[in-house]
Amino acid sequence: MLLRLSTLFVRTLREDPADAEVASHRLLIRAGYIRRAAPGIYTWLPLGLRVLTKVEAVVREEMVAAGAQEVHFPALLPREPYEQTGRWAEYGPNLFRLKDRRENDYLLAPTHEEMFTLLVKDLCSSYKDLPLTLFQIQTKYRDEARPRAGLIRGREFVMKDAYSFDLDDDGLAQAYENQRAAYQRIFDRLGLEHVIVAAVSGAMGGSRSEEFLTPTPIGEDTYVRSPGGYAANAEAVTTPVPDQLSWADVPAAHVEPTPDAPTIDALVDLVNTRYPRADRPWTAADTLKNVVLALTHPGGEREVVVVGLPGDRDVDMKRIEAALAPAEVEVAGDADLVAHPELVRGYIGPAVLGPNALDPETSVRYLLDPRVVPGTRWVTGANEVDKHVLDLVAGRDFTGSGTIEAAEVRAGDPAPDGSGPLELARGIEIGHIFQLGRKYAEALDLKVLDANGKAQVVTMGSYGIGVTRVLAALAEAHHDDKGLAWPAHVAPANVHLVATGKDAAVFETAERLAAEWSAQGIEVLYDDRPKVSPGVKFADAELFGVPLVVVVGRGLASGVVEVRPRSGGEVHEIPVAEVVDHVAARVAGLLGQA
Amino acid sequence: MLLRLSTLFVRTLREDPADAEVASHRLLIRAGYIRRAAPGIYTWLPLGLRVLTKVEAVVREEMVAAGAQEVHFPALLPREPYEQTGRWAEYGPNLFRLKDRRENDYLLAPTHEEMFTLLVKDLCSSYKDLPLTLFQIQTKYRDEARPRAGLIRGREFVMKDAYSFDLDDDGLAQAYENQRAAYQRIFDRLGLEHVIVAAVSGAMGGSRSEEFLTPTPIGEDTYVRSPGGYAANAEAVTTPVPDQLSWADVPAAHVEPTPDAPTIDALVDLVNTRYPRADRPWTAADTLKNVVLALTHPGGEREVVVVGLPGDRDVDMKRIEAALAPAEVEVAGDADLVAHPELVRGYIGPAVLGPNALDPETSVRYLLDPRVVPGTRWVTGANEVDKHVLDLVAGRDFTGSGTIEAAEVRAGDPAPDGSGPLELARGIEIGHIFQLGRKYAEALDLKVLDANGKAQVVTMGSYGIGVTRVLAALAEAHHDDKGLAWPAHVAPANVHLVATGKDAAVFETAERLAAEWSAQGIEVLYDDRPKVSPGVKFADAELFGVPLVVVVGRGLASGVVEVRPRSGGEVHEIPVAEVVDHVAARVAGLLGQA
Repeated sequence: MLLRLSTLFVRTLREDPADAEVASHRLLIRAGYIRRAAPGIYTWLPLGLRVLTKVEAVVREEMVAAGAQEVHFPALLPREPYEQTGRWAEYGPNLFRLKDRRENDYLLAPTHEEMFTLLVKDLCSSYKDLPLTLFQIQTKYRDEARPRAGLIRGREFVMKDAYSFDLDDDGLAQAYENQRAAYQRIFDRLGLEHVIVAAVSGAMGGSRSEEFLTPTPIGEDTYVRSPGGYAANAEAVTTPVPDQLSWADVPAAHVEPTPDAPTIDALVDLVNTRYPRADRPWTAADTLKNVVLALTHPGGEREVVVVGLPGDRDVDMKRIEAALAPAEVEVAGDADLVAHPELVRGYIGPAVLGPNALDPETSVRYLLDPRVVPGTRWVTGANEVDKHVLDLVAGRDFTGSGTIEAAEVRAGDPAPDGSGPLELARGIEIGHIFQLGRKYAEALDLKVLDANGKAQVVTMGSYGIGVTRVLAALAEAHHDDKGLAWPAHVAPANVHLVATGKDAAVFETAERLAAEWSAQGIEVLYDDRPKVSPGVKFADAELFGVPLVVVVGRGLASGVVEVRPRSGGEVHEIPVAEVVDHVAARVAGLLGQA
Repeated sequence: MLLRLSTLFVRTLREDPADAEVASHRLLIRAGYIRRAAPGIYTWLPLGLRVLTKVEAVVREEMVAAGAQEVHFPALLPREPYEQTGRWAEYGPNLFRLKDRRENDYLLAPTHEEMFTLLVKDLCSSYKDLPLTLFQIQTKYRDEARPRAGLIRGREFVMKDAYSFDLDDDGLAQAYENQRAAYQRIFDRLGLEHVIVAAVSGAMGGSRSEEFLTPTPIGEDTYVRSPGGYAANAEAVTTPVPDQLSWADVPAAHVEPTPDAPTIDALVDLVNTRYPRADRPWTAADTLKNVVLALTHPGGEREVVVVGLPGDRDVDMKRIEAALAPAEVEVAGDADLVAHPELVRGYIGPAVLGPNALDPETSVRYLLDPRVVPGTRWVTGANEVDKHVLDLVAGRDFTGSGTIEAAEVRAGDPAPDGSGPLELARGIEIGHIFQLGRKYAEALDLKVLDANGKAQVVTMGSYGIGVTRVLAALAEAHHDDKGLAWPAHVAPANVHLVATGKDAAVFETAERLAAEWSAQGIEVLYDDRPKVSPGVKFADAELFGVPLVVVVGRGLASGVVEVRPRSGGEVHEIPVAEVVDHVAARVAGLLGQA
C-alpha cells in the first residue's frame, strides 16, 4: 500500500480546535483523522478509518479465536423487544427514539441484549446448540447529556458487543473467563495498558461484572486498588460497615442555637466552643450532612430524596447514580423544594425525614451512608434556621429509609475485603464484561430443552468493547506534544517516507523506496509534495504518528538515508543500498513484538 | 478458514417464509443468511455476513483501484445541511427524522451529498486539491412506503456511495467515465449481469445520469432497448413529439349523448355507430382520457391535477412520479374530488381544466401527454354525465397547462433518438451514476481557487451501489429451486465438505481434508454433524450454495470421494489421495475465472 500525501484527502491543522479538551481529541482532529459532524458525532477521514479498521481487525480476530461467531444487527429497531424488558422506559433521555411513517415507535439501539436474545430464541432449541457466543462490531447510539472528549464519549460510536449463551452457571462462568482472557489478548496486542476492576452492572442488570480501564488522568472513571489486590471502579466500592455502638452513655439529644455557622467547619468550631464533648473534640465526621437530591425516574416522575452522610465526606454523584439507576439524579433545585416546606435549607435533620417524619407515608425517602450504624452519635440540622441538634443517636433517635453508597471514596479508605488501604487513580473504560444471568432470557422467554427434554431458561453473559473509544484511548496513551505516536499494529501505515528539498535524485530515490516497500507489503505513507518545506513535512510526520519515519534528503549526496523512530530513540543514517532491507526488518520487528 | 456445521450459528428452514415474495428473499431466509428484525430491516447471520463482506471487499478494491479514497460518515446527522439544500423537506415521509434530548432536529441519512460537500469544503481550498473522488460503504436509511422483496427494497441498507469533485465539466466527465468503468469491473467480478440505461436523476438533481440494472423478471424497474443501441429506464424514455396537424377540414366540436358507455371500448363502439368518422373508424387512440391525480408536495400541501393522454394508453405511475418529483403522487380519492365539483367522474373533459376553465386561476392544472399536439382531434368527456364531445381539436378548442410523460411505454414504441422500436424488460437497479454538477456546491458554497486565484464553484458527480441489494440480486441471479448457488468470489466458503454415514473412517478422512484445505487458505464449510442423515446434509448443501460440494461417504470404502459442482455439471469420483490437490486446483480455477 502506498499513500501519497500529494493526493491524500487530509488537511493538518497547526492550531488546536477550540472545543477539544483532551489530547486524543485535539490530535485526531489536527492530524486529519476525524472531523466533527455534530456534537458527539464524527466523520472518519482516510487516515482515521485505516486505524479504526486495524483496531476492529484485532478485536475481530481475537473474538473468532475465542470461538465467537460474528453477526450483524440493525441499528434501527422496533420498540417492542425493549418494551418487554422495560428498557424502552429505563433508558430515559439517553435513548434516541423516533417514529416511522406509520407512527410505529423505533429506537437507535444503544445495546442489543434484546435482539441477541430473540435471535438465539429463533435459531436454537436444544442444549446441543449451546454453548454459543455471538458478537458484532456495529454502530451504536446514545443521546449523552454531555458528549465530551471527542471519541471518548460520543453519541454515535462503534462497539464490539458479544453475548454468551449457556445452559447453566458453570457454562456462563467459563464463557466469561474465556472472554476475559480474549480481552486481555486484545488490549495487549493493541498496545493499550489496562487494569481490570470490579464494576456495578448498571442498566444492564446481572451479577458479576468487571471493567477494563486504561489508566489516564483524563479518564472519566475513578478506580481503586489495594495492596492486597482488590480493584474496583469507585462506583462499585462498598463501605465496610462499622460495628454498632452502645448508646448507654450518650446524653439525650438536645437542640441548640447555632447562629453564624453556615459551613460544617464553622459548626464544628461552634459546638466545640459552646457544647464540648467530654471524650474528644467534635470533628466534621461527627456531623450528619443531609443532601437533597431530585430523581427523575424512567417514566418521568420526579422524586425528592435526602441522603445523609458524615459531614467530612462529599457526595459522589457517579456513585449515587450507580446506586439509584435507572433513575437520573441531580441536586434538588428550588422548584423541588417548594413542595417540601419541611426541608429548611442548611438545617435539614432526620426528624422530618423518612420514617422519622410526622407522616412517614408522605415524607421524602431518607437514605443513609453505611457508616451511620445504630449507636453513632451526630450533630445535625434541627429543621429550624440557626438551630442544630446534638447527641442525636442513630437507632435511638432516628432511622433511615435505607442505605446508599453516596459518599466519595478517599485514598486510604479500607478495601471492603480487608486487603488494605485504597489508592485512587483515573482511567477510561475500554471494556466491560458481565454475567447477565437469566434476566433477558426470562423477559423474552429464551429456553432450550436440556438433556432430559425439560425446558430450561438460558443464562447469558455480555461483553463489550468501545472500539472508537479504544482508538481514542490509544491516541491518549501514545502521543507527545508534537503529535500522535501509534503502536505499530494500529498505525495508519508502517513507514512514513519523507522526501525533502528540490533535488530530483531525492524524489527518484524516494519513489523507488516507496515502490519497493509497498511491493513487499509494507504500508508506506509517502510525503511526495514537491513544494512543501522540510519543516512542514517533519511537523506533519510528527502529527500523523507513523512509527518509523524515513527521510531522504541532503544525506543522499553522501549516500545515506535517515531512519527515525517516531517515539524517540536513536536516529540512524543508513546507506541507501541497505535501507530497503533495514526498514523491512525493523517493520517486521515492530509488528512482531507489538 | 474452517466452519463446522455442528457449531455454526445457523438454522435452515424447509418451508418458505410466508412474507417472502421473491426467490432471493425466500432462500436467504431459508438458508439462514438473514433474519427479519422489522419491516425492511434485517439481521445478518454468520453466513450472510461472510457474503456481504466479500461483496463489500470487491466494491472497495475497485473503488481504491479507481483512485477513490475511503471515508466514513455518521448515519445520524443534523438537519441544517439538508435544510440548506432543501432536501429536509423534499424527502417527505421517506426520511427518518428524530429529535435529540435538546429538541434539535436530526435525520438518519438516506444519502450523504451534503456531508461530502461540506467535508471537501472543510479540507480543500485550491484547484491543486482536485480532482478528488471519495467513497464510503455505509448503512443508510429510507422510510420506504412499501419495503418489499427482502433486501431489494429495505429501510436500513448498505450503500457504497462515491462523489467526485472537479474544477470543470471536462474533469467531471472524466471522473464519471472512470467510475462507470469501475462499476463495470465490479459487476463483472461479482458475476452479475448488468445493462447500463439512461436514467432520470430524481430527487438528486443534476444532468447526465445512468443506471446499472441487472435483468430479472422480478425487478421493480422497467427498461427499454432499441436495435440501434438506445437504452433507458422506462421512467427516462421521452415520447417523440408528432408533427402538428392542420385542422382546416375538422368539423366544429360537438357534444353528443353517449349513454351506456362506461368504458373506452364501449365509447368507441358507440361513436363509430352513431357518429362515424369519414376517413376511418374511431379507435381508442382517438379518445382523450383524463386521469385525476393527487399530489402531496414536500411541504405537505395537497394538489389535484388532471393528466390527459390517449385512451389506448394506461398511465404509468412510476413515470408520473419521476416527472413530478419531489411531490408524491397517487390517484385522487373521493375526498380530493369533493373540492372540485366541476370534475364529473367518467366524463371529465378539457373545458373545465387548466387554461380552458372559466377561471383558470382556480382550476386544476391540466398536464397533457406529448402526443396531444395542436391539430390532433379527440373524443373526450363533456363534463356532464352520459355526454362526450367529439372533434375537439387540440390548439383550436383547448390547451394544457403543460406536458407530462405520463403514459406507459409499450414494446414497439419508437426510440426517442430514432434508433428503432423499443423492447421492454425488467431489472433491479444495482448502481446509479450521475453528474450532479454544481447544485450542492452552490447550495453549500463549495469553492476552490483556480490557477488564477479566482474562486470557482466545484462540480460534482455522484456514484452509488446498493451493496445489500447487489447481494440479493446475486441470489436472484444464481439459484435454482433447491437453493442458492453463489458465484465463487462471493460464496461464504470455497468448499462445502459433507461427511455422511456413521463410519469413523469417513469422519477421520473428512477432518483431514478440512484441515489440509484450510491450512492452504481454502475456506471450508464442513458438515461434521454426527447424527444427521445424508438427505438433510445434501439438502442443506444445496440451500447454502457453496460452489463445490465434496462428499466423503460410502465411496471411501473403494477409495474415492465425490466432487459435485453446486450449479450442475459433472460429478467426479476422485481418489482420496488426489482429492486435496484436485479441489485446490478447482477452487483456484473458480476464483481465477469468476
